[in-house]
Amino acid sequence: MPRGFQFTLDHTDGAARAGVIKTPRGEVRTPAFMPVGTAGTVKGMLPESVASTGADIILGNTYHLMLRPGAERVESLGGLHRFMNWQRPILTDSGGFQVMSLAGLRKLTEEGVRFKSHIDGAIHELTPERSMEIQRQLGSDILMCFDECPALPATEKALAESMRLSMRWAARSKEAFGDRAGHALFGIQQGGVSRDLRAESAEALRAIEFDGYAVGGLAVGEGQEAMFGVLDHAPGMLPEDKPRYLMGVGKPDDIVGAVARGIDMMDCVLPTRSGRTGQAWTWRGMVNIKNARHRDDPRPLDEGCACPACRGYSRAYLNHVFRSGEMISGMLLSWHNIQFFQDLMAEMRSAIRAGRFEQFRAAFEARYRQGDIEPL
Amino acid sequence: MPRGFQFTLDHTDGAARAGVIKTPRGEVRTPAFMPVGTAGTVKGMLPESVASTGADIILGNTYHLMLRPGAERVESLGGLHRFMNWQRPILTDSGGFQVMSLAGLRKLTEEGVRFKSHIDGAIHELTPERSMEIQRQLGSDILMCFDECPALPATEKALAESMRLSMRWAARSKEAFGDRAGHALFGIQQGGVSRDLRAESAEALRAIEFDGYAVGGLAVGEGQEAMFGVLDHAPGMLPEDKPRYLMGVGKPDDIVGAVARGIDMMDCVLPTRSGRTGQAWTWRGMVNIKNARHRDDPRPLDEGCACPACRGYSRAYLNHVFRSGEMISGMLLSWHNIQFFQDLMAEMRSAIRAGRFEQFRAAFEARYRQGDIEPL
Repeated sequence: MPRGFQFTLDHTDGAARAGVIKTPRGEVRTPAFMPVGTAGTVKGMLPESVASTGADIILGNTYHLMLRPGAERVESLGGLHRFMNWQRPILTDSGGFQVMSLAGLRKLTEEGVRFKSHIDGAIHELTPERSMEIQRQLGSDILMCFDECPALPATEKALAESMRLSMRWAARSKEAFGDRAGHALFGIQQGGVSRDLRAESAEALRAIEFDGYAVGGLAVGEGQEAMFGVLDHAPGMLPEDKPRYLMGVGKPDDIVGAVARGIDMMDCVLPTRSGRTGQAWTWRGMVNIKNARHRDDPRPLDEGCACPACRGYSRAYLNHVFRSGEMISGMLLSWHNIQFFQDLMAEMRSAIRAGRFEQFRAAFEARYRQGDIEPL
Repeated sequence: MPRGFQFTLDHTDGAARAGVIKTPRGEVRTPAFMPVGTAGTVKGMLPESVASTGADIILGNTYHLMLRPGAERVESLGGLHRFMNWQRPILTDSGGFQVMSLAGLRKLTEEGVRFKSHIDGAIHELTPERSMEIQRQLGSDILMCFDECPALPATEKALAESMRLSMRWAARSKEAFGDRAGHALFGIQQGGVSRDLRAESAEALRAIEFDGYAVGGLAVGEGQEAMFGVLDHAPGMLPEDKPRYLMGVGKPDDIVGAVARGIDMMDCVLPTRSGRTGQAWTWRGMVNIKNARHRDDPRPLDEGCACPACRGYSRAYLNHVFRSGEMISGMLLSWHNIQFFQDLMAEMRSAIRAGRFEQFRAAFEARYRQGDIEPL
């Protein structure tokens, strides 16, 4: 890794790994879950609240930030960390995934992608070089290669062509990134559900040499079984001594399954998005707080949780404020969910270090399937 | 005042008064501004954040809480303090003001008011007796008499009839309230802008004897000049040794003018409502954070303010998150506004105690009219 960055793999337990990424802005304990701060805020939370849950790193979205407020503006204001008042590490995506989701509004060439802003319809272009420039302007600690992420299912031929384009873009991303002390660049493996394409992609990335490697192109609708099928072999194709990042995942059971298969980092909007729609994640699965059966329930969401929602309020209150459309509903449930996801990661790190990850996983899965709460 | 309640008037400076209301749930330093927690939450804030601004007491709305989640439910869950996780004093209004605002949906008789819920159209009834019952179920520390609040302008005849009905309801409210240790009941003076009716109303309330007295029927569209005209004489008609509460006020300059005229307590949704629409209140007046001139401004909203919005963020960031529709915008600006309103009250209390309230007021007004900030 570049100067100022260091990944130490401390423990392995089966395929599961525990370690730490040291960065100039602080350490990231792995396996790590990164809350998503799309547009310069983890929705519904103050950054000190995010930090209080044990989150070591958050993710920022290049696509959103380049359109509003603009990467040049963020740079002139001192960078994304100062702008959003988050001093710990930030990983930025490349903008590729969001741009590819703009069906009908984009044009893909060897050079890059031209697209229309969803905000004002203005035409923008993203290329590997421009993505590196924007991520540099934002002041990101961990930058991601610009890649194409095809929707699944796709034909083998389409997957192969897309993957090879992404590998050419990966080489251009590395070239444009250069050598920046204190900043790391991760490559992204593509190839969909094809083992051969995943191997070819891993080989191409290893030849370029990155500071970390993402398993890309998953969590795009293929389902958990297909995702786990890829994760049974894909992480092992990547260098053992570098962090492995599964992008856009996921639900708690996805996360546990991914860690079991050798993943070190993940990110997802799920905790905050669920929180805003009245869904809370617990060790017993998902709780729909809007359900009428919570209306008179004096118990907390999750007895064992230390978050403000669980320490201060009943399910009845959480039901009331959700039904009333009050901001505090999204604030409390987002906080709870981020806390739960971080607690889950902390439990997994402990289990891996203690050599009892499989026991943890079995207990997790049994409890997770119980249903959200016993009747009053 | 009833057992457990005590109002001590410590200092007067002209008509301005500084004191303290002692309650079983803690002290309320006066002049006091009460943030409004309409439906069991001060919108966009956690209760510990509200407390951190120096707020000693908040207001809850009988009308909203009786409809959702229902006063019986709140009682069975341990009362409003536990329900909303606010352990300091709570004042509840009587429901009268909100019900009277439901033009066309209500029927007024000597007995009380029948009205349709704005949530589900169900028919409800509020009477002095029912209002006392609901406020008791909520566990309110300071209850308000059920009254009628006519819109201004109104004829002298209409004002007189309405005021006299409110005085009959005040007597019924007192009778229904009974003698509840640890809980106080405030009467509400009516009479619009008529000095004679205000005097008649004050006389009627003094004969019934309350633990505190509100100046009601203002802040309903009459304008600051007319309001101050009433406040030039109305507070002096009320007992000197009891708290005087001006309902639903107001902007910072309204508040300073009311304190100058002998008011001890106020409440208003303005700080949180403004906060959600991108308006911030400062010593230099109102800042519209959505204004494009803030887009590149690295300065805080208010240099001297200790709230999280001013300590952690630039005007540029606050502009960005407002324009992006992010929850943190309303969270930060509501917090800032509540902090500013509490700072304003603290400064006034200090000035009154030091015998320099008129100097404070002159300096406040000069600065307040300067405009929100010097150009970059």
